[in-house]
Amino acid sequence: MPRPLTLHPDRLLPADPATRTLARELYASVASLPIVSPHGHTDPAWFARNAPFGNATELLLVPDHYVFRMLYSQGVPMETLGVRNPEADPREAWRLLASHYHLFRATPSRLWLDWVFAEAFGLTVRLEAETSDLYFDTITQALASEAFRPRALFDRYGIEAIATTESPLDTLEHHAALRKENARPGGWQGKVITAYRPDPVIDPEFEGFQANLARFSDLTDEDCGTWQGYLAAHRKRRAFFAAMGATSTDHGHPTPRTADLPLAEAEALFAKVAKGPCTPAEAELFRAQMLTEMAAMSLEDGLVMQIHPGAFRNHNARVFQRFGRDKGADIPSRTEYVANLKPLLDRFGNEPGLSIILFTLDESTYARELAPLAGHYPCLKLGPAWWFHDSPEGMRRFRRMTTETAGLYNTVGFNDDTRAFLSIPARHDVARRIDCGFLAELVMEHRIEDWEAAELAQDLAYNLVKQAYRL
Amino acid sequence: MPRPLTLHPDRLLPADPATRTLARELYASVASLPIVSPHGHTDPAWFARNAPFGNATELLLVPDHYVFRMLYSQGVPMETLGVRNPEADPREAWRLLASHYHLFRATPSRLWLDWVFAEAFGLTVRLEAETSDLYFDTITQALASEAFRPRALFDRYGIEAIATTESPLDTLEHHAALRKENARPGGWQGKVITAYRPDPVIDPEFEGFQANLARFSDLTDEDCGTWQGYLAAHRKRRAFFAAMGATSTDHGHPTPRTADLPLAEAEALFAKVAKGPCTPAEAELFRAQMLTEMAAMSLEDGLVMQIHPGAFRNHNARVFQRFGRDKGADIPSRTEYVANLKPLLDRFGNEPGLSIILFTLDESTYARELAPLAGHYPCLKLGPAWWFHDSPEGMRRFRRMTTETAGLYNTVGFNDDTRAFLSIPARHDVARRIDCGFLAELVMEHRIEDWEAAELAQDLAYNLVKQAYRL
Amino acid sequence: MPRPLTLHPDRLLPADPATRTLARELYASVASLPIVSPHGHTDPAWFARNAPFGNATELLLVPDHYVFRMLYSQGVPMETLGVRNPEADPREAWRLLASHYHLFRATPSRLWLDWVFAEAFGLTVRLEAETSDLYFDTITQALASEAFRPRALFDRYGIEAIATTESPLDTLEHHAALRKENARPGGWQGKVITAYRPDPVIDPEFEGFQANLARFSDLTDEDCGTWQGYLAAHRKRRAFFAAMGATSTDHGHPTPRTADLPLAEAEALFAKVAKGPCTPAEAELFRAQMLTEMAAMSLEDGLVMQIHPGAFRNHNARVFQRFGRDKGADIPSRTEYVANLKPLLDRFGNEPGLSIILFTLDESTYARELAPLAGHYPCLKLGPAWWFHDSPEGMRRFRRMTTETAGLYNTVGFNDDTRAFLSIPARHDVARRIDCGFLAELVMEHRIEDWEAAELAQDLAYNLVKQAYRL
Repeated sequence: MPRPLTLHPDRLLPADPATRTLARELYASVASLPIVSPHGHTDPAWFARNAPFGNATELLLVPDHYVFRMLYSQGVPMETLGVRNPEADPREAWRLLASHYHLFRATPSRLWLDWVFAEAFGLTVRLEAETSDLYFDTITQALASEAFRPRALFDRYGIEAIATTESPLDTLEHHAALRKENARPGGWQGKVITAYRPDPVIDPEFEGFQANLARFSDLTDEDCGTWQGYLAAHRKRRAFFAAMGATSTDHGHPTPRTADLPLAEAEALFAKVAKGPCTPAEAELFRAQMLTEMAAMSLEDGLVMQIHPGAFRNHNARVFQRFGRDKGADIPSRTEYVANLKPLLDRFGNEPGLSIILFTLDESTYARELAPLAGHYPCLKLGPAWWFHDSPEGMRRFRRMTTETAGLYNTVGFNDDTRAFLSIPARHDVARRIDCGFLAELVMEHRIEDWEAAELAQDLAYNLVKQAYRL
Repeated sequence: MPRPLTLHPDRLLPADPATRTLARELYASVASLPIVSPHGHTDPAWFARNAPFGNATELLLVPDHYVFRMLYSQGVPMETLGVRNPEADPREAWRLLASHYHLFRATPSRLWLDWVFAEAFGLTVRLEAETSDLYFDTITQALASEAFRPRALFDRYGIEAIATTESPLDTLEHHAALRKENARPGGWQGKVITAYRPDPVIDPEFEGFQANLARFSDLTDEDCGTWQGYLAAHRKRRAFFAAMGATSTDHGHPTPRTADLPLAEAEALFAKVAKGPCTPAEAELFRAQMLTEMAAMSLEDGLVMQIHPGAFRNHNARVFQRFGRDKGADIPSRTEYVANLKPLLDRFGNEPGLSIILFTLDESTYARELAPLAGHYPCLKLGPAWWFHDSPEGMRRFRRMTTETAGLYNTVGFNDDTRAFLSIPARHDVARRIDCGFLAELVMEHRIEDWEAAELAQDLAYNLVKQAYRL
Repeated sequence: MPRPLTLHPDRLLPADPATRTLARELYASVASLPIVSPHGHTDPAWFARNAPFGNATELLLVPDHYVFRMLYSQGVPMETLGVRNPEADPREAWRLLASHYHLFRATPSRLWLDWVFAEAFGLTVRLEAETSDLYFDTITQALASEAFRPRALFDRYGIEAIATTESPLDTLEHHAALRKENARPGGWQGKVITAYRPDPVIDPEFEGFQANLARFSDLTDEDCGTWQGYLAAHRKRRAFFAAMGATSTDHGHPTPRTADLPLAEAEALFAKVAKGPCTPAEAELFRAQMLTEMAAMSLEDGLVMQIHPGAFRNHNARVFQRFGRDKGADIPSRTEYVANLKPLLDRFGNEPGLSIILFTLDESTYARELAPLAGHYPCLKLGPAWWFHDSPEGMRRFRRMTTETAGLYNTVGFNDDTRAFLSIPARHDVARRIDCGFLAELVMEHRIEDWEAAELAQDLAYNLVKQAYRL
């Protein structure tokens, strides 16, 4: 007999009965607020084309590195899951997930997937070996229906706005199509915008960097062989992204190092990295200089900067070689913000028009570095618990370690940062529950009043993200 | 209608009802114990002169970097708050605080200020834009009364002893006046003592270091152009501070690095830094050597050493340039104790007469480095959660991460470390509540007995600080 | 009147009543499962000879560095406790422990000792100055009885298997005797196995390293003056250890650095360190290379690798000089895994046959480095909270910071890692209680189902350790 699957209405709320009662009321007041998703990695083609998703495996297993990294860690070969392997039978791959589903106990993936299974697909029994085919068939069948097309799901889950992330080399054709669709009388009104992620033309260690610069020149009619031409190309491309709705840039550097070189040195460094090869130290210095240049451009064009540092990308050499990027083998590293950000802050830290949102994979920096920085510099805000820390315990640690020094108004609400479309409402639901639990605890200890908690619940779920991302 | 302001009697106690009942009893047993404040930055002139404080802004806003750093982070210019700006209208400055008071939700500043508003000034409505003038007038008026003079407040809040912090270059005239006052028949008996903070004559990177050495020579009649003369000057000045009640020294170095150089090297290094200029590495090495020299002198004269490392001072260059030191722009940095303290410990670590109290701004060192060190070396004790971590969550993390390895008897009670006089009773109240909650949790889990918790509550609130600081 | 000593049946279970009820049920289902102790430092001679233990001091005080480090930190000289001092009167030493027993309030030592006093020796009053002699006599008298011989205690506490830890230079005579005893008709059936801890012949900075290599040659009939001979000696000795029951190796390096040098470089490096002297950097590189060599051999012979890095050994120079190793003066240090393990992982990280269990003394690596690594690499598992973190709060932090990313199935159950024999059942009891409390909290927040918690309780207490250590 398969075990029943139900989503308990009090899930993730604190166990203490009085605290739970309070948290439940707070949650009820924000549960159905629109979702604003200012940072993520969904595919704009989904919404531009509105083609049906394929099957269960294609939608929920293959694109989700949280899921296959755990399976891989317990000896399930990735190719059998269909990762970079079109030969794999999706039904068999799904059976592997089903028979290993106990591995996800007490992980956020389990919370998100169970939400999707129950809430999106109406499944009422748990995923296990015995129910694998029932799941595969139910999900795959649903995906063929109109109600499960991307735009229908976008509307069904109350998404008010979603940002995707694109390289400056992207033509943004899907975003252009979406702009037209929005403008068409009777057209779909979903707000899908882009964000400017220039790593491929900023990071000299990115695959194909020199070729990328060449293409950057072509796209912008600027000479990216010169420092001034290269900067002009960024300005043009940022303007184009802004025209496609972008309100932010995003920078995924190994470290948050910044620099503020004299013009001649910056020019010489650019000449070196543009021609290649350069040393790792030069590559790092160039990325550092570019964060400051990007801040300068943000002051001009108003795009909010996001800095996402600290991932050691593609740590598993063989997995990278065989399966490529983003296959669950990125590992966080110790990260230093205080000295690293100083050059940028010395130049722009007191500019009222600048807004920089800092993220981290190193929780030891929450109370020590990030909250003190954001609690002082007018240009700095703290992004939410990110990636490995986007989880109930991770979110609690974030709130407990940042709030007392940075306050809640130097944070920016929730980011789902996902490639797994249906996990978006699931993740926002987790964030709202955890934040309401946190606020309820503050009220129970008389650290804030109940009416303040009610205001804050709205702010954390909806208002802050709109302000911070200028949406 | 303004919202009511009340201080809930159970504030900061754990939410679980049985735990709260226990915590409430423990707290009741220590709530009215005298306050011993062994480390802080109040102005001895307040108590020597006993002049009335000025207005609300002057007392509560301008000297409190916790308060204006948060306002500044949200775009309120510091000059409008009256920071280094005598032109600013204090009533207008107070209105800025009032209209931004929501920013402090869930921060310790809010807890301290609300305590001061309700407990010290009897205010019964919350601070907000609408009540700003009521607050300003109520507080300012009260301050003109006898009951709000410094000595009256000192007595009213049951302060048994308070230590201020002075440079060796300070003449300690206010402390001398206080000694006389104490000795005068019928004179005020408040115990206000000093502490020896020699950073200005120990840190070669301190503003005016060479001039400070010259003045150090003048004050002591020693030749601070020589290593032996310089050390003799310290000995003399320490003796003078001890005569003014000092029982401790305090060292605010960037890192806790120590060194134990051969005499000839120490002499040569001193010659270099005394003449200037020196490299950052030489400055660091000199500070390191001086911690060991100070430990040697503490063995002679019995002054307890406090080491407060890990702040990147004046991180915001423009704020430092315009507003000076201590304006909320000090940011914690990663700190290493195990290798850094070894030279000093190799020399004096096993001396029964030596006592060194360690502080940190890097909580990742609590369980990893500080508790193991203090749980072994006879000379080491742990100072309480400090500065950014002097908060409910910060104090809980301190207890949870240090107690199991260092025990409670290698800690030293609470330090308020404040420039904001009225926050002293507010902060000690927070500490007592959090510690009693922590003890109640231990009892509830049967990790200690209830009668042990009762003893420990007294120890943490009163006994340990007196022993540790030899008061 | 001495205070009563009782072990509350709900000790260490969460305070919230509903959570406690659930935790109590889970705990009841695992409380009497057999103990599997795969890593520790008990003396195999105890079980081989089965001689009675001596007196209370000899059994419980002198071998327990947790106990005397705390006493030493509060000024009790170690020689008075009998540490390296046969002159010390054991009854007087015990009186020192008794009169300072309050120092252990809220520490794990107190939990373990009280368990031993009440559960093993049936004491019903608390240890304090007044009851010191009662304790000393009761315990010492009991130890003379048959019921308190090592094998009887082993059986009484349901130990299914225990691993000791030996150097490759150990002759394993006690293990050989135990193998014979096990095989003898009617012989004792206790399973006591060894583990291969090659630090003395791998770490060029180990006392007597060159002499150790000479003895390594003698024992193995290999020429440890050559790289190939040295590796062959390891292979032979590992096989011998495996024959004495070993299923694991153990590596206590200062850091988890690994290397994968070309053969010629490895040979040259070995030649240098074998001859001596070498630089600290060369010593570190050699240890790094040897971790990779040990992994290669584990692939051949199936021994599970354990890496225990991050202790600054013998930090207190005078204590080391006078009292030797393992006297409570080892201090944890910041530890880096992501870059350090990469060379080994690049070579063997994806081998399904390899199993490496990682430990840490640096909790900041739990969520940042260790959980992400173990949640991806098939060869990696996480050892439990270790040494200073083998405590209620430490275990909770371990679970809260690793579970969401690594899952529970990439962990390996509990290790007691102790020299204090009677603390083994006490420690396993603490671990089971804390894990059941953690699982109950997950159920209360509907993050797992109750039937899953029941399965997981069995897994964490019994199944995972057997699988991970191939027992």
